[in-house]
Amino acid sequence: MTFRQDAIKQPRVTLVGAGPGDPELITLKGLKAIQGADVILYDALISKDLLDMASPYAILKYVGKRSGQHSMQQADINQLIVDMAQAHGHVVRLKGGDPFIFGRGKEEQLYAEACDIPVEVIPGLSSALSLATLQHISLTHRGISNSIHIVTGTTSEGHISPDLLHIAQGNGTCVILMGVHKIEGICSLFISAGKGEMPGMVIQNGSLPNQRQVSGPIKDLPILTTHAGIGAPAIILLGHVVELYHANPCSTLEGIIPSTLSF
Amino acid sequence: MTFRQDAIKQPRVTLVGAGPGDPELITLKGLKAIQGADVILYDALISKDLLDMASPYAILKYVGKRSGQHSMQQADINQLIVDMAQAHGHVVRLKGGDPFIFGRGKEEQLYAEACDIPVEVIPGLSSALSLATLQHISLTHRGISNSIHIVTGTTSEGHISPDLLHIAQGNGTCVILMGVHKIEGICSLFISAGKGEMPGMVIQNGSLPNQRQVSGPIKDLPILTTHAGIGAPAIILLGHVVELYHANPCSTLEGIIPSTLSF
Repeated sequence: MTFRQDAIKQPRVTLVGAGPGDPELITLKGLKAIQGADVILYDALISKDLLDMASPYAILKYVGKRSGQHSMQQADINQLIVDMAQAHGHVVRLKGGDPFIFGRGKEEQLYAEACDIPVEVIPGLSSALSLATLQHISLTHRGISNSIHIVTGTTSEGHISPDLLHIAQGNGTCVILMGVHKIEGICSLFISAGKGEMPGMVIQNGSLPNQRQVSGPIKDLPILTTHAGIGAPAIILLGHVVELYHANPCSTLEGIIPSTLSF
Repeated sequence: MTFRQDAIKQPRVTLVGAGPGDPELITLKGLKAIQGADVILYDALISKDLLDMASPYAILKYVGKRSGQHSMQQADINQLIVDMAQAHGHVVRLKGGDPFIFGRGKEEQLYAEACDIPVEVIPGLSSALSLATLQHISLTHRGISNSIHIVTGTTSEGHISPDLLHIAQGNGTCVILMGVHKIEGICSLFISAGKGEMPGMVIQNGSLPNQRQVSGPIKDLPILTTHAGIGAPAIILLGHVVELYHANPCSTLEGIIPSTLSF
């Protein structure tokens, strides 16, 4: 009797952000959720090392979709989350980065809750902020930038976000996700705003052993990226703080004062 | 002889982001650094639970500064990091959030490297993105917002950032750090831009047991914040995505479609 009661598993869902790629950049809370999961539904770019942390009894299922290669429709993923929770108990939906930043985690949460399944959300390191930090670039370095603008390179309609036109006119550092295939159009907006000489960087496979990056003035960034053969998944950083990547600490500390920055 | 060689500890520094407050929101990599530290220099708002993970032989020293109450000058912190590394080996500099987002981690890195001490940087969850996710608010919910603007409420000169004036005119979700004491001036900029009815939220002590928040139209947000007695540390979220906080999943999924949003 006691055994039977224990065996009834309450359906529940935890949306977990796995971070930018390096499996050690998940949170403790995220790791604990993985370890306690009955089912893990995971995306592309999720490290095998993280999946290895799951219980040997857990059901692991790939539901990934990559830019331009949707292997599973969002509506089907939403329903699978619910079906798995009702059949097996605790479903961990493991997503790259943060589940609510340019992911569709919110839709998954609302769908599960509409089916009376409680949902917890555990944030993850978004590549939008963490990859610059890993490169020792401070997106908001004192005296250089007071703000960060994070924008998708591709809207749900497949266009360059109109917000980019506005951001290119303003101050602050710009981080573009899912935009490397539109880098020429994106850089054109900044060149038109008189920022062709401002430094930029493209980082592919950030935080992973196969990470690669290129940097240069925005006017040259598209050709540098093409020549280096850099493609998705990648982020684009545009702003004077990128110069910090080249700061030479051994010579002088003057380099961190913005008036001395040149590119 | 072997013993003596083992005892010589190479000076090195790891800048670690502790995340928004909940100790389980640190990364695995950050936790490992804490566990391997000879010295931990930590800020205000760092959880005692994290410090308890350090070696019993580690030296723990508080070097915090709070808004308006600088208990230690940045130059003194920079020098202390170097002195401690040279004397004891591995120094972990433990900072709230991400060490390079509106912190002065970059200055600490450059100073240590100028003294020939190698520096590793481990990103942390910035409150700028993670607190919204914890509130089940997607800052970039599909169809509502394509971009996020993160800005400090207070520049190094103590003024409201001029970037806010520009951001208030644009689209996207705005996240303001260190701005709750200037909320009236900040909201005025958005009201002047015709956004007085756009929803906003203020979150104090995000991710901690004593978290509190208020939400309402931007025109009412300063008075709501004052009446609730909410002060620093807090973040301000301004944008239509805040409406998602109130989404009622039990009734209908229509609420996630932007055309039906009202406040």
